[in-house]
Amino acid sequence: MDPKTYNLAIVGYGGMGSYHVQLIEPIERLTVAGVFDIVDYRKELAAAKGLQTYDSLEAVLSDDKVDIVLIATPNDVHKTIAIQALRAGKHVVCEKPVTVSSSELLEIMETAKETNRVFMVHQNRRWDEDFLIIQDLIAQKKIGEVFRVESRVQGANGIPGDWRQLKAYGGGMLLDWGVHLLDQLLLLTGSRIDSVAAELSFILGTEVDDGFTSHIRFKDGLTAVIEVGTTNFVKLPRWYVKGTEGTTVIRDWDLSGETVAINPDVAKVEPTPIQAGQGLTKTMAPPSEESTLRSPIEKAQSTKASFYDNLVSVIEGAAEPLVKNEEVLRVLRLIETIFEAAEKRAVLKDLEL
Amino acid sequence: MDPKTYNLAIVGYGGMGSYHVQLIEPIERLTVAGVFDIVDYRKELAAAKGLQTYDSLEAVLSDDKVDIVLIATPNDVHKTIAIQALRAGKHVVCEKPVTVSSSELLEIMETAKETNRVFMVHQNRRWDEDFLIIQDLIAQKKIGEVFRVESRVQGANGIPGDWRQLKAYGGGMLLDWGVHLLDQLLLLTGSRIDSVAAELSFILGTEVDDGFTSHIRFKDGLTAVIEVGTTNFVKLPRWYVKGTEGTTVIRDWDLSGETVAINPDVAKVEPTPIQAGQGLTKTMAPPSEESTLRSPIEKAQSTKASFYDNLVSVIEGAAEPLVKNEEVLRVLRLIETIFEAAEKRAVLKDLEL
Repeated sequence: MDPKTYNLAIVGYGGMGSYHVQLIEPIERLTVAGVFDIVDYRKELAAAKGLQTYDSLEAVLSDDKVDIVLIATPNDVHKTIAIQALRAGKHVVCEKPVTVSSSELLEIMETAKETNRVFMVHQNRRWDEDFLIIQDLIAQKKIGEVFRVESRVQGANGIPGDWRQLKAYGGGMLLDWGVHLLDQLLLLTGSRIDSVAAELSFILGTEVDDGFTSHIRFKDGLTAVIEVGTTNFVKLPRWYVKGTEGTTVIRDWDLSGETVAINPDVAKVEPTPIQAGQGLTKTMAPPSEESTLRSPIEKAQSTKASFYDNLVSVIEGAAEPLVKNEEVLRVLRLIETIFEAAEKRAVLKDLEL
Repeated sequence: MDPKTYNLAIVGYGGMGSYHVQLIEPIERLTVAGVFDIVDYRKELAAAKGLQTYDSLEAVLSDDKVDIVLIATPNDVHKTIAIQALRAGKHVVCEKPVTVSSSELLEIMETAKETNRVFMVHQNRRWDEDFLIIQDLIAQKKIGEVFRVESRVQGANGIPGDWRQLKAYGGGMLLDWGVHLLDQLLLLTGSRIDSVAAELSFILGTEVDDGFTSHIRFKDGLTAVIEVGTTNFVKLPRWYVKGTEGTTVIRDWDLSGETVAINPDVAKVEPTPIQAGQGLTKTMAPPSEESTLRSPIEKAQSTKASFYDNLVSVIEGAAEPLVKNEEVLRVLRLIETIFEAAEKRAVLKDLEL
């Protein structure tokens, strides 16, 4: 008997919904059963691509051939649709941010448990090459013990002009991009969080944040800066990571960057003062060329399954989910803590995070 | 009658003391009268350069031909020497950080007033070209209203191996380099400070900070990140400045960098999504080439007098000091606030700063 092919229906056929069609195409055990969107022209777009369309969410949920529902709607309705779909016996994949609050996710998780269905959040950036490289770097101590991680995503386009600018729809950069960067960060250490400070940016005059800066200190001493901006015409590096034996920079998604590390074969040389501006400095003089080693960014060695291959295995009980709901819940709680720290303008400590 | 030439004696002939000899050489109205240092070999070094040497601080202060005393000793003795010199009728120039606490500076300022002598702190980095460029950029609104200033100095040499590692001597990076970056920052806006948050770094295991990150919010809405590091094998840009119409980056003291600004002649174009890592993004897609203008860093147009030319004018009552003691006092109070914020791990608000 051939292994079963699972039918997936897409709810919400905007930018991400249509992107998922491409993601699913190479997955042997998955096929797109059809598309539903509340906007007619999006259904027409889907039909023009040869996809079946549904007239209502109810039509999707009552279609027995649908095994999996993918939710790629605005964030505010993720919870309602997810719970309906689970109760209709479907497995559910949900776009990020999974919900606007951790309590909403808890409701979904309980429903998934009750209905014995799989619920998995599409935290796709756990598969980003730049992230996997940093994960390897830290795990393999390539620059010694890492004590500082700075992870930034910056653009100059403002917030795209749709529901992402609106609070009621779960808009804003902390929820949109913050959820990726914070999710990645929490995978870089096994430590609990010690304190959180944050500042939201409202330069563009939107009701939601157009960016943010957060400082997160872990109990093991690691400190992190997580920053998103949409008013940045020049970008700071995507990753800036300091270890006891060197610094690694990945400048952009093109993986340009380098590692500069202490050369263990050369005794430390007292630096020679340099003229810098209107003064001399020994402290800020460069290390001598011999005392450091420069190397390009090395490819990550990850062999983990793709998101959708993993989903099929999880549905069949053959693997643990690569995105665990408890992990996603922790990220949402961290986001809530960041909102609170920014609003109170305080460093939040004694956290259960 | 020829204008008077002032005789300056150097107290403390380390790296900075000897550097001042070079600074004074081109100043017509100033000459180096001699050098005192408590370390014999430093006096020998000075003598070998043809400089007169003194056997004691008292010998300097009782030499009637000495008009000005330059203090370039470790930080902990600045106050005592400054007050002695002022009381001996000398004008005083002092290296930075002027004192380890604001109360010490207040004592000096009172003594300068009583004795009617000039006391000026050598905040030489007010003349740094990179700083003058940023000052012009903001004053001339070249990138619109500036709402974010990030100013960083980073090296990989640790703290130079002398008194700068010791608390009792006023060591540590906040006092050493912080005093420059904070002094520059306060000259970029007329606004009072609204809040301060900070984190000190103790990676190297010294008793003083080997670097720090501080977040300063001004009442006019400007936010600033001031950061110094000595464990950074790759540097983040020296200046990263965001305005409502563009971003300016100065990468290093070599003044490499650029301004990328909105092209006012091109209507805003909706960005095209790009593939970035394992996802699509419209928000973080680059603006189209036509919609922005790139320009190299322009030279500053400053015509201000040099530190020592200004000193002579101030002594003669012909000019206001370019480094005012009240400004230096405010910087010290800000440093004290940063120490307090870091220690309490709190955002300090309702400041009189």
